[in-house]
Amino acid sequence: VDVAILIFDGVTALDAIGPYEVLCRLPGTDVVHVAAEPGAFRDSQRSLTLVADRGIDEVTAPDVVVVPGGPGEVGLRHDARVLAWLRDVHQTTTWTTSVGTGSLVLAAAGLLDGVCATSHWLALDELTRLGAFAVAERVVVDGKVLTGAGASAGIDMALSLAALLEGELVAQGIQLSIEYDPQPPFDAGSPQSAPPVVVELERAKSRFARTT
Amino acid sequence: VDVAILIFDGVTALDAIGPYEVLCRLPGTDVVHVAAEPGAFRDSQRSLTLVADRGIDEVTAPDVVVVPGGPGEVGLRHDARVLAWLRDVHQTTTWTTSVGTGSLVLAAAGLLDGVCATSHWLALDELTRLGAFAVAERVVVDGKVLTGAGASAGIDMALSLAALLEGELVAQGIQLSIEYDPQPPFDAGSPQSAPPVVVELERAKSRFARTT
Repeated sequence: VDVAILIFDGVTALDAIGPYEVLCRLPGTDVVHVAAEPGAFRDSQRSLTLVADRGIDEVTAPDVVVVPGGPGEVGLRHDARVLAWLRDVHQTTTWTTSVGTGSLVLAAAGLLDGVCATSHWLALDELTRLGAFAVAERVVVDGKVLTGAGASAGIDMALSLAALLEGELVAQGIQLSIEYDPQPPFDAGSPQSAPPVVVELERAKSRFARTT
Repeated sequence: VDVAILIFDGVTALDAIGPYEVLCRLPGTDVVHVAAEPGAFRDSQRSLTLVADRGIDEVTAPDVVVVPGGPGEVGLRHDARVLAWLRDVHQTTTWTTSVGTGSLVLAAAGLLDGVCATSHWLALDELTRLGAFAVAERVVVDGKVLTGAGASAGIDMALSLAALLEGELVAQGIQLSIEYDPQPPFDAGSPQSAPPVVVELERAKSRFARTT
């Protein structure tokens, strides 16, 4: 299985690394990080550099494509070359996937028209506006399109994908190897469970980030 | 708050990126990736390059140090310069932390003698051998030493740390921003919950990796 993970300036590191850490453990699987051009890219928080070893021109038929999210997705949505590449590879992928706001890029490429998909909880309205049938679920499968909610949901998405590709025992082995037995210290991981004041603060921060 | 995350050849990417994605969202916090020498390092699965922007000589008094794990920790345990740096910075850190087998490096530096700590579930015996009081918990706090279990436990560890540093509301905001509302598709994330055949396979793989 050939997996291509798209990297870009302003990617949220965990959106990319969560699926990476799961999928690279699939037996017989090659994972490559790709970008419009190969090179080093700064993440959303500007304190980490991730390297894309290959340009998209060099990776023309991955079995699985993963589009992570992050504030840089806005630029990506207007990058005609990247959108054309996504449309091209989607024709032959086994699974086309995203994490967080990566689904907005898939939608901008025209791949989610009328497709059930999810995104970061703050981006579900935008996902609807871009033509998808937005669903507030952690992992959504529609045909060969697999989308995950924000950042940490990439781990759940990728474990589901691992099971679809290689069966439950393999996926469970990977889950055990990364000791994914989550015990969050708080119950604040979704807008339904977080204290209302925390939800409103995150909404306000997001509005502020969009207007500055 | 100044946070230093140690990078090395053969680091498990998620061990480093889980805490990074949480800690870099703390207000007023600078996170830097450091290594024996600055440069690019290949991860445990050899398909990802992470960049350390600074050498350890340049970062002499971080408030928080994070030591991720990964197969490369074996080399690190014999790197006198890195061990000396850990002993030095530990004198003035507010929190000295690790994820997965990163605790074996802290132990090799002599920082865990008689200290309660955890590690990847396959490394708890080795952690005991190195002088720590090994505990099979997801996150362990003993004095100013905070250790997490394997890979994905770095997210839980860092959220606990965020709360210790800046309070629960800030930690909950970060949890919501990375949508950490985990819903693993299987209950196989610990040796207690995973099917016995999955546990035995992972144990066998680990023995094989050590003898080849």
